[in-house]
Amino acid sequence: MSKFDALFRSIKEKAKVVDDVIFELLPEKEPEELYEATRHYPLAGGKRVRPFVVLTAAEAVGGDWRKALYPAAAIEILHTYTLIHDDIMDMDETRRGRATVHKVWGINMAILAGDLMYSVVFDAATKAPVSAEKIVEIVRAIARAGIEICEGQALDLEFETRDTVTIEEYLKMIDGKTAALFDASAKIGGIIGTDNQEYIQALSKYGRNVGMAFQIWDDVLDLIADEKKLGKPVGSDIRKGKKTLIVAHFFQHASEEDKAEFLKVFGKYAGDVKGKGIIEEDIREEVAKVIELLKKYGSIDYASRFAKNLVKEAKEALKVLPESEARKNLELLADFIVEREY
Amino acid sequence: MSKFDALFRSIKEKAKVVDDVIFELLPEKEPEELYEATRHYPLAGGKRVRPFVVLTAAEAVGGDWRKALYPAAAIEILHTYTLIHDDIMDMDETRRGRATVHKVWGINMAILAGDLMYSVVFDAATKAPVSAEKIVEIVRAIARAGIEICEGQALDLEFETRDTVTIEEYLKMIDGKTAALFDASAKIGGIIGTDNQEYIQALSKYGRNVGMAFQIWDDVLDLIADEKKLGKPVGSDIRKGKKTLIVAHFFQHASEEDKAEFLKVFGKYAGDVKGKGIIEEDIREEVAKVIELLKKYGSIDYASRFAKNLVKEAKEALKVLPESEARKNLELLADFIVEREY
Repeated sequence: MSKFDALFRSIKEKAKVVDDVIFELLPEKEPEELYEATRHYPLAGGKRVRPFVVLTAAEAVGGDWRKALYPAAAIEILHTYTLIHDDIMDMDETRRGRATVHKVWGINMAILAGDLMYSVVFDAATKAPVSAEKIVEIVRAIARAGIEICEGQALDLEFETRDTVTIEEYLKMIDGKTAALFDASAKIGGIIGTDNQEYIQALSKYGRNVGMAFQIWDDVLDLIADEKKLGKPVGSDIRKGKKTLIVAHFFQHASEEDKAEFLKVFGKYAGDVKGKGIIEEDIREEVAKVIELLKKYGSIDYASRFAKNLVKEAKEALKVLPESEARKNLELLADFIVEREY
Repeated sequence: MSKFDALFRSIKEKAKVVDDVIFELLPEKEPEELYEATRHYPLAGGKRVRPFVVLTAAEAVGGDWRKALYPAAAIEILHTYTLIHDDIMDMDETRRGRATVHKVWGINMAILAGDLMYSVVFDAATKAPVSAEKIVEIVRAIARAGIEICEGQALDLEFETRDTVTIEEYLKMIDGKTAALFDASAKIGGIIGTDNQEYIQALSKYGRNVGMAFQIWDDVLDLIADEKKLGKPVGSDIRKGKKTLIVAHFFQHASEEDKAEFLKVFGKYAGDVKGKGIIEEDIREEVAKVIELLKKYGSIDYASRFAKNLVKEAKEALKVLPESEARKNLELLADFIVEREY
C-alpha cells in the first residue's frame, strides 16, 4: 500500500467518465481517416491527469465535478492536439507505444486532425451546464493557455539552434509549454465550482506550480530513474541535446573545461544512430561521464530541489480552500509529481 | 462608374478599421519569429471580405457594426490560419505575391503560427462588447465552422487520390471548406445585431450560399477569365488536376472516349514542369483542347448557372430583413461574387 492509493483510485474513476465524453466528442464518423487520427492517442491510454485536475478543482471549491466534464474532456483534447503537432515538429515516430499520428496518416492529415481537435475543444467548452458568464471565462482561459503553449513551443524550437539556455529562459519556456495548461485546468475547475475569486486564484497558482514541477521532474527522472521503470535509456535527453533546467544550471556554473567536455557528448546522438558504426555501450559510457559532470556541480540536485519547492508552494496555495477529500487529492497529486519514479 | 462602386468604398472603409484590430491581436512581440509569421499574410493585403460580411450583417439587422469588430477580426484571422496550414499541405510556395509562411520560416513555425492564430481567434471572440450569452453563441459558431473547414479540407485531400468526384461529393467538400466560414460570418454579425432568430437564420443562409457561389465562380474563372486580370494561366486548375464542379459535371455526362481524352491532360502538369523539356506552348494547346471538351458538355455553363442560382437564393434569403444600405451592400456583394472577372 502506498500513500497514493486513494489518489490513483480517484484518477482511474474520473478517467473512465472523462473518456466517455472524449469519445463522444471525437466519434467514429466521416471523413473516416480524419476522425480516426483524432482518436489515435486518446485510444492509446494516458492517465488523464489534466482532466483530473479540472474535476477535482471543481470539487475542492465545493462544486459539482460533473458540471466540469465537458471542459475536462476539452482540456485533454487540447493537450492531445498539441502532442500531434509537436510530434510532427520533433519528427517523433512513436508515442505511448504506438506510431505517431503523422507516421500513420501522413503529415497533412496530422496537421488537420490537430486543427479539428482544437475546434472541438471550444465547441465542447460551450457545453458545460454553467452560466454563459462562466463559459466565457472558460473559453478565455483555454484560448490564453493555447497562446502560451504556442509561445513556449516556439521558444523550445528556438532552443534547438543553440548550445545552451539560461535558467530564466528555460523557466519561461516550460511556463508556457507545460505549466499554462495545468494552470488553466485548475482554474477552470475553480470557475465552474465557485464564484470565490480568491479560491480560483489559489487553484490557478497551484496548477502553474504543479505544471512547472511536472516538467522539471520529468527532466530529473531522465537522469536518475531506473531504466526499466522509465522505459527508455538513462540520459536520453543528453543524447538528444535537450535543454533542461539541469543543463541550464550546469552552464551557469561549470568551468570552461567541463562545459567543453559536456558539449562533446550533448546532442551528439540525436535521431537514429543505428548503422553508423556507433556502439550502444560506448554511448552509455559517454553519457554516464556527462551525468557525473552534472552531479559535480550539483545541477541535478538543484533541479530536484527546484521542483520540490514548486510543489511545496502549490500545496501552500491550496491552504485557503476548506479541507476536503478533493483538496487532499490535489495535494497528493502534487506530491506524486516529484516522488514518482517514471 | 460601376454598380459596385459604393460596395467597394464600404469594403475599403471597413477593412481599415478591421486591420487595426487584426494587428492589435497579432502584435509585434516575443517570440519574434512566431508573431512575425502570424502577421505575414495579413500584411500582404487582401480585401477582408469575411469581416465585411460580419460587420455589414450586424448593420443589416439594425445593430452597431462596431460591436462586431473583434469577431470580424477573429474571422479573418481564422481564415488566414487555414491558409497557412493549407499552404503547407498543398506545398504552395507563393500566396498574395509573397513566399508562403512555411517557405519563409519553415514548416514547424508555420504549423505553430497557425495554431497560435487559432487561439487568438477565440480570445478575440470573447472581447465583443455584447452579452455573455451572445459570446457563447459566437464561440460556438466559430468552433463549428472550424470543424466543418477541417472536414472539407480532409475531403479535398482525399480527392487528390482519385481521378474524379461526383457533383454531390464536390458540393459537400466546398460546403465545409469555403461556405461554412461565410455562413458563420453572416450569422455572427446577426447574433451581435439582433435577437430575431429569423433574421439570424436568413443571414446564415445568405452566407452559406454566397460562400458556395464564391468557390464555384473561382473555378469557372480559372477557365474563362482574361489571364492578365486573373494573374495566372487559363486552366491552371486543369494542369493541377483540381476537382471542380465543372470537372464533376463533365465526368457525369461525357462519353468514355472524351473522358479518356480529358484524363490525358488533367493533372498532368501539377507542380514544376520546368527543365523537363515540356514547352509552355504545347501545354496551352492541350489545355485549350480540354476546355473545348468541357464546353461540349456544357460543364462550364452548368457551373456558372449553379453559382448564379446560389447568389439568387442568397439575395432571396435577405428579403426578410428590412431594406437598408447594409442589406443593399450584402446583395451587391453577392452579385459581385458571380460577376467579377478576377
